[in-house]
Amino acid sequence: MTDPSASGPVLTLSEAAEATGGRVVGDGRARFRRIVPVFDAGPEDMALLADRRYAPDLKECGGAALLASETLAGLEDGPVDRLVVRDPHEALVTLLALLHPASEEDWGVHPSAVIHPEAVVHGEAAVGPHAVIGAGSTLGRGVRVGASCVIGERVEIGEGTILFPNVTVYADAVLGRRVIVHAGSRIGVDGFGYAVVDGAHAKVPQVGGCVIEDDVEIGANCAIDRGSIGSTRIGAGSKLDNLVHIGHNVVVGRGSLVVAQVGVAGSTRMGDGVVVGGQAGIVGHLKIGAGARIGAQAGVISDVEPGQTVSGYPARDHRTYLKAMARVMRLGEVVKRLERIERSLAAAVPGSSPGDSEP
Amino acid sequence: MTDPSASGPVLTLSEAAEATGGRVVGDGRARFRRIVPVFDAGPEDMALLADRRYAPDLKECGGAALLASETLAGLEDGPVDRLVVRDPHEALVTLLALLHPASEEDWGVHPSAVIHPEAVVHGEAAVGPHAVIGAGSTLGRGVRVGASCVIGERVEIGEGTILFPNVTVYADAVLGRRVIVHAGSRIGVDGFGYAVVDGAHAKVPQVGGCVIEDDVEIGANCAIDRGSIGSTRIGAGSKLDNLVHIGHNVVVGRGSLVVAQVGVAGSTRMGDGVVVGGQAGIVGHLKIGAGARIGAQAGVISDVEPGQTVSGYPARDHRTYLKAMARVMRLGEVVKRLERIERSLAAAVPGSSPGDSEP
Amino acid sequence: MTDPSASGPVLTLSEAAEATGGRVVGDGRARFRRIVPVFDAGPEDMALLADRRYAPDLKECGGAALLASETLAGLEDGPVDRLVVRDPHEALVTLLALLHPASEEDWGVHPSAVIHPEAVVHGEAAVGPHAVIGAGSTLGRGVRVGASCVIGERVEIGEGTILFPNVTVYADAVLGRRVIVHAGSRIGVDGFGYAVVDGAHAKVPQVGGCVIEDDVEIGANCAIDRGSIGSTRIGAGSKLDNLVHIGHNVVVGRGSLVVAQVGVAGSTRMGDGVVVGGQAGIVGHLKIGAGARIGAQAGVISDVEPGQTVSGYPARDHRTYLKAMARVMRLGEVVKRLERIERSLAAAVPGSSPGDSEP
Repeated sequence: MTDPSASGPVLTLSEAAEATGGRVVGDGRARFRRIVPVFDAGPEDMALLADRRYAPDLKECGGAALLASETLAGLEDGPVDRLVVRDPHEALVTLLALLHPASEEDWGVHPSAVIHPEAVVHGEAAVGPHAVIGAGSTLGRGVRVGASCVIGERVEIGEGTILFPNVTVYADAVLGRRVIVHAGSRIGVDGFGYAVVDGAHAKVPQVGGCVIEDDVEIGANCAIDRGSIGSTRIGAGSKLDNLVHIGHNVVVGRGSLVVAQVGVAGSTRMGDGVVVGGQAGIVGHLKIGAGARIGAQAGVISDVEPGQTVSGYPARDHRTYLKAMARVMRLGEVVKRLERIERSLAAAVPGSSPGDSEP
Repeated sequence: MTDPSASGPVLTLSEAAEATGGRVVGDGRARFRRIVPVFDAGPEDMALLADRRYAPDLKECGGAALLASETLAGLEDGPVDRLVVRDPHEALVTLLALLHPASEEDWGVHPSAVIHPEAVVHGEAAVGPHAVIGAGSTLGRGVRVGASCVIGERVEIGEGTILFPNVTVYADAVLGRRVIVHAGSRIGVDGFGYAVVDGAHAKVPQVGGCVIEDDVEIGANCAIDRGSIGSTRIGAGSKLDNLVHIGHNVVVGRGSLVVAQVGVAGSTRMGDGVVVGGQAGIVGHLKIGAGARIGAQAGVISDVEPGQTVSGYPARDHRTYLKAMARVMRLGEVVKRLERIERSLAAAVPGSSPGDSEP
Repeated sequence: MTDPSASGPVLTLSEAAEATGGRVVGDGRARFRRIVPVFDAGPEDMALLADRRYAPDLKECGGAALLASETLAGLEDGPVDRLVVRDPHEALVTLLALLHPASEEDWGVHPSAVIHPEAVVHGEAAVGPHAVIGAGSTLGRGVRVGASCVIGERVEIGEGTILFPNVTVYADAVLGRRVIVHAGSRIGVDGFGYAVVDGAHAKVPQVGGCVIEDDVEIGANCAIDRGSIGSTRIGAGSKLDNLVHIGHNVVVGRGSLVVAQVGVAGSTRMGDGVVVGGQAGIVGHLKIGAGARIGAQAGVISDVEPGQTVSGYPARDHRTYLKAMARVMRLGEVVKRLERIERSLAAAVPGSSPGDSEP
């Protein structure tokens, strides 16, 4: 495998401790160029141990240093030179930014891009090869539109927002500041709205807004509908994983996490800080309270209270659901007890009706 | 938020009534530029009330007028000037077309498009920037191919069909008239077909057709395979939501609705007028009868009768399934009754075997 | 429907038998241009019968010849001229390659492609219209990059690999030899990784690798994340269907099949020869043993042993799960037996406590 960072920056353990507010164990002069999983670490690497389940890998670890939480810092195996921090993932945010400074790739406004004369592109925005910017659209300072992105008419894109390649933004969408949209996502798509006219499905024009607030990140190949009337809205700071579907007029609250392949049907409104597990589905017109947690693959067909954790289909309180499923797996035992009782009863009380075949 | 329609057409209530065959309550001269949800309506807006669950919002509604069904027309709160119609969504089809006339954006055949000399593009078709049209392909009158679409060889696209940007159509696919394909969908993709040869998966060439009939709408980021041999077919007037997967040789009947993130595996044949709920999956080689309804997230592993409604995994009759799941949630009670019986029996019939631990 | 092969090669039954090692029944001079399903076959077609469920269609079959396995070769109806083979799908691999030779479309390096001066493109590689190749990337001999693909910086693409149109490959990804990536897939996407810093989700830079080994095929609109640190890896010879999500640091073993719309969360490691059914989900940090089979729509939340077959949510041993679900559907019967016992008991043992309402 190529190692893109082979010629990149190097950090010492002391420098890393200073940057993260962490504590050095052993030699602060230990040096590393990369941070990698324990089982991958070589002599120029710092190994990351953030989860106890990877502790057994320490035995084979060849890294120059170890990055670990207080809880895991005392383990015997592995590199003796260590950076101990409160939250290794938080430390990663800092350290990886130092080791992997942002790419210098900068197409400026590439001559092959097609920018409508009535579009406004800030002098410090970048537009990649073959991108298309529609009439009346506005790109703020520091915006980067990737190659082959297509931005419709009257789209607003705020400062510092990054669109990876091959993204489509439909007309009239609004993207805030520091938004990241990964490759192939579609923003402001027509929702799934039809009226039955003369026995056929007639398209209800989809004319509402699609608002992506500040600091949202959207994964690859997502589809986010515009409102039919009114708006679809993704709240500030929320993060969507890959292949997520957001129907028309949905509101995702602020600071929420929506894991891969989730689908949210039209007009459902979610509070702030909601977490939706992978492949979960939420039907339309529901209210999901702030801080609710929806389990992976859950099928939500009724409102969820703030702070509630739900699982399964139809989604119910998580513990109740797991308990019920555990009982289901032991149903055979129930049936056996039933048969035993029926036999006892038949023996003790002649004439009492015996059971049928095993359910 | 930008308001794209701020300078658009204005309608009076009387004009709206005439266009829809509705009935005016109050002042027919009330004017509106937009139709919006009740909770969003301002003084230039008509508020839409199509669902009783939004009736409480009427108290705060600042709209100039209300669009409501006969059933909801008599509610006391909200705007007194009203348009009362049989089906508000049908009225929306008419009114939104008047308020939001089709965009005038027209790239013609953009000079950056790459059109093979052996392709035939009708004089009234439009091809967006950076689109590619392969050899032997034909675009009918009024076809609009969005920016960065890639159309393979020998593709036929019928009159009035619209491809949003970044769509791919593989070789040999046939799209009928007035088809709409949203951004990022892939039509005529190789199916998932392999034969085990010498212990490895050898690709079976995928050479069948992919036929999208008239008036079909396909959402964003869908993937529709071509036939392996034979054809995949989406019947006339059917509508697919975002992120739908249609395997090779599948037939979707006419006038069907396939909600977001549904997957249909190879060679399954669906009748007309089928409705498939979001995230449902249907395995291969099944027959789904006309008018069947498949619940959201259902996992269908056997044929479904015409008109049948199924739910759950493995999918079964909807009512039976819900009843069974309700019983599951009360299994704890069954176990308690069992224990009670065992105790009674043990007391009454000394020597009868008592139950074990709770299942 | 257009028939792309109307003017293509023609085979006789004898030629087909020679190419496949099969056995001719009847006239070896029977000729065909296409291989199609039994119900589609016309006078220039060979009908394929690989599955007994399509045997009834033989009655109406108008094909010139039949391709069948030994087991099905003796059926009475249908064409009398037959090619009998051990494995019809294996025969298809050979015969379809003869009937449908690879398309001659060859853009070479299209003048509209944007290739960074520091990219290395082999003289026998093809780059489609509007494709973009980033700095430091390398395309081997016979590589074909489709129209509007965007290849980031420092990407390696091995000999004979084919990217269909509108694909995105992020920086630093490595694709082996003879890989096929279908339209709209995204390789090397940033994973879903955040640390909570000052109460908000801060992005953990995603700097790991994404390695697609030799002979992998990836369907349309998939999203495959790069490692956060360390690498994501798709093992040699594995095949992914459409709309699959692979999280960061996931390892898919060699020779595996991952059906449409599957999602695998971060850091899960799968052995070789695993089969994952459509829409199944696997949570993060698990080990899936070699040869495991995961049922369609299964939700896997714990490790799976090598060779184990699991189903349902939470996924369990397949047979156990189906048995439990069958019992669930007959829970009503259990309750009735319980009531009967309670009545007998109440009659026989006065004072014993009767049951409550039906659970």
